Amino acid sequence: MAPYTFTAVAANLPSTVPFIGPEAQERARGTPFLARIGANECVFGPSPKAIAAMAQAAVESWCYGDPENFEIKAALAAHYNIPADNIVVGEGIDGLFGYTARLFIEPGTAVATSLGAYPTFNYQVSTCGGRITTIPYRDDHEDPEALIDLAIAENARLIYLANPDNPMGSWWDAKTIQCMIDAVPEGVILCLDEAYLEFAPAGTAPPLDVFCDKVLRFRTFSKAYGLAGCRIGYAIGEAELIQSFDKLRNHFGVSRIAQAGALAALADQQYAKRVVQQVAAARNRIASIAKDNGLEALPSASNFVAIDCGRDGDYARRVLANLVTRGIFVRMPGVPPQDRCIRISAGTKDDLDVLEEVFPEALRNSEAST
Amino acid sequence: MAPYTFTAVAANLPSTVPFIGPEAQERARGTPFLARIGANECVFGPSPKAIAAMAQAAVESWCYGDPENFEIKAALAAHYNIPADNIVVGEGIDGLFGYTARLFIEPGTAVATSLGAYPTFNYQVSTCGGRITTIPYRDDHEDPEALIDLAIAENARLIYLANPDNPMGSWWDAKTIQCMIDAVPEGVILCLDEAYLEFAPAGTAPPLDVFCDKVLRFRTFSKAYGLAGCRIGYAIGEAELIQSFDKLRNHFGVSRIAQAGALAALADQQYAKRVVQQVAAARNRIASIAKDNGLEALPSASNFVAIDCGRDGDYARRVLANLVTRGIFVRMPGVPPQDRCIRISAGTKDDLDVLEEVFPEALRNSEAST
Repeated sequence: MAPYTFTAVAANLPSTVPFIGPEAQERARGTPFLARIGANECVFGPSPKAIAAMAQAAVESWCYGDPENFEIKAALAAHYNIPADNIVVGEGIDGLFGYTARLFIEPGTAVATSLGAYPTFNYQVSTCGGRITTIPYRDDHEDPEALIDLAIAENARLIYLANPDNPMGSWWDAKTIQCMIDAVPEGVILCLDEAYLEFAPAGTAPPLDVFCDKVLRFRTFSKAYGLAGCRIGYAIGEAELIQSFDKLRNHFGVSRIAQAGALAALADQQYAKRVVQQVAAARNRIASIAKDNGLEALPSASNFVAIDCGRDGDYARRVLANLVTRGIFVRMPGVPPQDRCIRISAGTKDDLDVLEEVFPEALRNSEAST
Repeated sequence: MAPYTFTAVAANLPSTVPFIGPEAQERARGTPFLARIGANECVFGPSPKAIAAMAQAAVESWCYGDPENFEIKAALAAHYNIPADNIVVGEGIDGLFGYTARLFIEPGTAVATSLGAYPTFNYQVSTCGGRITTIPYRDDHEDPEALIDLAIAENARLIYLANPDNPMGSWWDAKTIQCMIDAVPEGVILCLDEAYLEFAPAGTAPPLDVFCDKVLRFRTFSKAYGLAGCRIGYAIGEAELIQSFDKLRNHFGVSRIAQAGALAALADQQYAKRVVQQVAAARNRIASIAKDNGLEALPSASNFVAIDCGRDGDYARRVLANLVTRGIFVRMPGVPPQDRCIRISAGTKDDLDVLEEVFPEALRNSEAST
């Protein structure tokens, strides 16, 4: 019997590492993956200017980063033409979800999300003792109206919706999202996860409204800017709501190198645009590899593609396992019916050459073991 | 009236940036500091090998870091000759204090610490609604026996003690600390902050005991290894207690660059030893600058020196302000009687040349404005 006493909430939490990282899988395999296209990382890498800025910042990494994140907030403010007071910078969207949960979720507080949506939002809510309520996806989309209804029925304080969605890649247009924001009930905040927004068609996001205190817009340098390993993201919202993150955020939490890298990456919009084009081309190629193998790729507005394996979750899990065995790091949705799909991140030409090569055999093998 | 509802705990927290960073002060001044010796950073910088490793890792920063922190944990395990299961790596000691608070502190839970000890521990406890109880320093030392008595009297779940202490630089020998650990009551965990341990004389820390579940030992790459801007620290403790951090830590929270930098820094013990020597020399020079100005420097086992300004807190605050005005970033203890001191971090030769030059005038000016 341990002599220490956890909080009531912590006592009921399991000790887990929710995502098994590719590094752990490589250690288990005893050999590196041939293609790392499972975590929706940006294989095209950050801007060379960001790399140079980070290398320079490494020399100064004896200094704590600026706890106010002043420079990167000013740059984001200029980029979006909004005041800096409407932006909070944190340790990736995951870190900001953690702060959001701690601001609003106490034991028993409900949140409304979709069954199979981004699990780390739920993880952070659970660490605060929150109650996760869900509705199913509708036609592989998160369902804005049903989420609003659920939030009302369950007296939720937070609603989660990703646009574009992860893991399905589906998206709503700005008008639909704006209708959802308008319908958010009194007392509720919509956590609108726009991590993949840069890859989506124009007209996917409604304009930023810095006076609306019913929504927090979460964005990141992890995806289009290729800085997943740096842990830097941000939320945009009404100024007083944004300021409330100062109640409990880890003020020195964003690394100095991340601040420097994000600043340089944001300034290099030409590079970011090229990444978006490369991702679009990779999506097309993944879809055509799927088609060549008799499968359908779902439309995607993100940096990954869900391939419908055409049967149930067990079959898709076999396909996934057969790809992993052949050196391709991929992941898949966790719950039916989305788990008929596997999810493949945009890869380099080399990554997708390997995928193309091994995919037929992976499918044959999954068939054989039925 | 905001439409959203904070948790009962968050509603009562102020929105603040507890430490005003040197960058914010520089923006207000309109000019950079001449010497940055206020935040106990390592002015001698990280090992060139760590800088090179971080520059290399910057290229790979499109990849998330390993959520298991496997390599750096393995290296630390080898360094200390303990199992890796007894180590948790997190976003600096501040980040790990946040997790510790969330594991053990719920509204009303008491912690026992010293009045004027490290404020970020208290900050993290407060974000969980904890009740901070304190006893005064005794002769500029945190008082192990009184802390134990306080914890018993207040039914505390956590005790905080830093050895060496920040902000005073004082320390206890290993025997005293071991006695304290032995006296930790059932149901209580001692958070032993050893951030500055590398600068202390041999015999300051008791041996690591991986079976003792009454203490967590917090250490960092921010100080002797010069990686404050990277946010990477660790805690050492009994395996099951350590594993409990997996209940709620941000698994991808440690940046890939920090992992690489820490690994290279730890491997370069020769460099770390030289830093410790440079810091010791800088401490001596700060003490001699103090003496030249008729003041006494307190003995220090850390990378900073508290200079007793010989009067009350108001006077020391004037001395501090006069140094800041003259381009020296320094800080000072927050509460009496420790606030008769200013705290000066080990600086480079150039830093301390500036300090030596402006100190007499700063003192004269503080005198004049009495």
